[in-house]
Amino acid sequence: MSDLMRRELQLITAGLDLFAESAERQAARVVRVAWEPPPPGTAGDLARVLADPRREPANARAAQRVLTTRAHLVDVLPAADALGLGPGRLLHAGPPLAWEHASGPMRGALIGATLLEGLAPDATGASALLERGDIDLEPCHHRGAVGPMAGVVSPSMWVFVLEDLESGRRTHCTLNEGLGRVLRYGAFSDDVLDRLRWMSAVLGPVLQAAVRAHGPIDITAILSQMVQMGDEAHNRNRAGTLMLVRELLPSAVESAHPARDVADVARFIGGNDHFFLNLAMPACKLALDAARDIPGCTMVVAMARNGTEFGIQVSGTGDRWFTAPAKVPEGLYLGEYGPSDANPDIGDSAITETAGLGGAAMAAAPAIVRFVGGTVTDALASTLGCYEITLAEHGSLSIPALDFRGTPVGIDVTRVVRTGILPKINTGIAGRIAGTGQVGAGLVTPPAEVFSSALRALATAAG
Amino acid sequence: MSDLMRRELQLITAGLDLFAESAERQAARVVRVAWEPPPPGTAGDLARVLADPRREPANARAAQRVLTTRAHLVDVLPAADALGLGPGRLLHAGPPLAWEHASGPMRGALIGATLLEGLAPDATGASALLERGDIDLEPCHHRGAVGPMAGVVSPSMWVFVLEDLESGRRTHCTLNEGLGRVLRYGAFSDDVLDRLRWMSAVLGPVLQAAVRAHGPIDITAILSQMVQMGDEAHNRNRAGTLMLVRELLPSAVESAHPARDVADVARFIGGNDHFFLNLAMPACKLALDAARDIPGCTMVVAMARNGTEFGIQVSGTGDRWFTAPAKVPEGLYLGEYGPSDANPDIGDSAITETAGLGGAAMAAAPAIVRFVGGTVTDALASTLGCYEITLAEHGSLSIPALDFRGTPVGIDVTRVVRTGILPKINTGIAGRIAGTGQVGAGLVTPPAEVFSSALRALATAAG
Repeated sequence: MSDLMRRELQLITAGLDLFAESAERQAARVVRVAWEPPPPGTAGDLARVLADPRREPANARAAQRVLTTRAHLVDVLPAADALGLGPGRLLHAGPPLAWEHASGPMRGALIGATLLEGLAPDATGASALLERGDIDLEPCHHRGAVGPMAGVVSPSMWVFVLEDLESGRRTHCTLNEGLGRVLRYGAFSDDVLDRLRWMSAVLGPVLQAAVRAHGPIDITAILSQMVQMGDEAHNRNRAGTLMLVRELLPSAVESAHPARDVADVARFIGGNDHFFLNLAMPACKLALDAARDIPGCTMVVAMARNGTEFGIQVSGTGDRWFTAPAKVPEGLYLGEYGPSDANPDIGDSAITETAGLGGAAMAAAPAIVRFVGGTVTDALASTLGCYEITLAEHGSLSIPALDFRGTPVGIDVTRVVRTGILPKINTGIAGRIAGTGQVGAGLVTPPAEVFSSALRALATAAG
Repeated sequence: MSDLMRRELQLITAGLDLFAESAERQAARVVRVAWEPPPPGTAGDLARVLADPRREPANARAAQRVLTTRAHLVDVLPAADALGLGPGRLLHAGPPLAWEHASGPMRGALIGATLLEGLAPDATGASALLERGDIDLEPCHHRGAVGPMAGVVSPSMWVFVLEDLESGRRTHCTLNEGLGRVLRYGAFSDDVLDRLRWMSAVLGPVLQAAVRAHGPIDITAILSQMVQMGDEAHNRNRAGTLMLVRELLPSAVESAHPARDVADVARFIGGNDHFFLNLAMPACKLALDAARDIPGCTMVVAMARNGTEFGIQVSGTGDRWFTAPAKVPEGLYLGEYGPSDANPDIGDSAITETAGLGGAAMAAAPAIVRFVGGTVTDALASTLGCYEITLAEHGSLSIPALDFRGTPVGIDVTRVVRTGILPKINTGIAGRIAGTGQVGAGLVTPPAEVFSSALRALATAAG
């Protein structure tokens, strides 16, 4: 004992800071372990769900399905054809939402899509239609689709069609418009609508011809390369976009489309480092959809935000959404914009984090901290934290900087509640006033309540 | 003292291992500092060069010139036009070399180029011409060019033309043929020559039209992006190649060339992740040439290998080469090949390491260890070691994983000799028998003697 007290003391503390602070005042070196007890009221639910004998095999099966799904881009089609989206119906990001609860950017995007479809002569008319409920609103996720930010899809917009070639299952996503003043960030001025019209008239058809001539493009393989090239596939899609251009352009050149249109398409895609996001997202959804509806499974299969609420869906509880008010991201702002301009978290793009990309793969994309804020150490910590709350590591998505460790995949509701660690989401930030567009990019976490609500439902289902 | 002996001992040792080993046998924790005394006979030279009052301002000026040079791709031309390369004359990599000392891959490439130019009917005839000295051989570096591996340039081959737009200085490099059985690795079969003919007939002219329509392309800016995307620009040029495709293809599509040729060019470049190497190399040479011929300057301005000897040129000693026998790289081998098939180190591509890329920037490209061998920790160590022997950090080439620290630039002869740290070079490995082609990729260091020879010359010049 006397020998012990002579040596330099090294303390490890967990939980209350009181002990750590007291020791530090006595000049001891303290290592604080990040730990907190599960939130009050969750202990019983946790015990029941952890005791459910179906849980472990169900989770193993779910993880296996996610890891083995391969997504191929097989076609590019108008949403009317691909999704059976009829006139007067619009899709949006996140859990179900009524117009009266919609945030500024969501309203802006819905107004823009109503104008694009020619359903109203101007913004006032479009607002009136939407307010009266004359336009049907439905989440993208309910139609096998995902949409970044407001995620609004109207019948005339073209969508990527991704397929799991083994099962024939499909997912969809619109074509990316670029950054700044764009519909998905809530802008709906004439230039925004003109760009969307060009995308339907030229971009979609040229891509369709190229994809059909080329044959299915392995999007999972491109994702695999991306994490070796500094992309995390949510807010950095540079390498992915470049690989898509390389893959599709030769076929586009040989198509019947005029050289001028092909060159315009090449410049449009090449000028938008985020273009591949709209392929990464449906690829993630395709993998996660494979893990849906497994009784007893505690894996999150969707995280999505509609600009008002953050919602998750869990494999063992079917299509039910667990929702809570969305938080406002923290990050870096464009130009004169600041935190007071920011809308709460919005978009289906958190499907990337749900599948082990985005914030979960930030260790593969240290350069992203220049876009979303924080330090390289924070980027590493974001990925390392995810390993604590996930079920598997993705063998095909390996992070060189972590000695080729696979990305953390399969967020487990029980682990999130037990550890208090929330997944970090890389996200764009929309201006809170309809019509503004993008104001920044940053990081956000889901509200913790969605996980305890899901745990409660899983406990009830466990009986 | 009695208290000291009670505490756990932590020893730091430098130099002889004897002390470290003895303490380790007594269960002490030893941190060994990598250090060795300067090689015998260099102390006097070091003292004279370090005392040279011109050294510090000369080195500062040299580093500044390297850091501020911007390389633009301004044209694509036949070597005959761009380099004034007359018939019967061939350029090769590395320091000057006579046929009788040429290694297998160098002989293979020279034979292939002689056949390509129609100077002999077959390999035997070509060998005879070369043996008789009927073909003039000259280093690429002596004509403002660099060439990867054998680096053979013949008049009909097309070259990239890079320019420093401020000074009008230019450098050049051939177009990259791809991997495997290619001329620069010493292969000269009919398929190799057919590919080279297509490159002169189609690839060169299409690229020329695209570059001329596009206007100067900022290669330094692409290099800057590459180190954010996992490329070190010597053995990994994936992102760079993709960015070049994005930049040039729209103009190629709009050119007068047939769509079929443009599509072939897009597929050829897109199918070769190393294509950009031949732009990275002359960009590095352009920056380093700006630092040549500064009296008293101890900075290395070229490292190059001809397959027999490794040579360096130093700013303060003009065009003089300091040479020693080239080492054989250690690395990973393709298919059935092994170390006994490897030729000694070959190529001008070590110009990338000379300019702070390649092995000096491996920390930016951890995924490369899957291609050249070693671990991610080795990759970090390669870059960190370079900071010990270089004069500056490149502000435009920042490494995200090192918290955006600039790459180490400007190898200082005095620091290399003082520390014994040699730059690590990422390199392809050529088969040692003429006609084989590539057998692997790995890492190699220069022979230490080239630095002590250069130091001796600098000491003599210091007076």
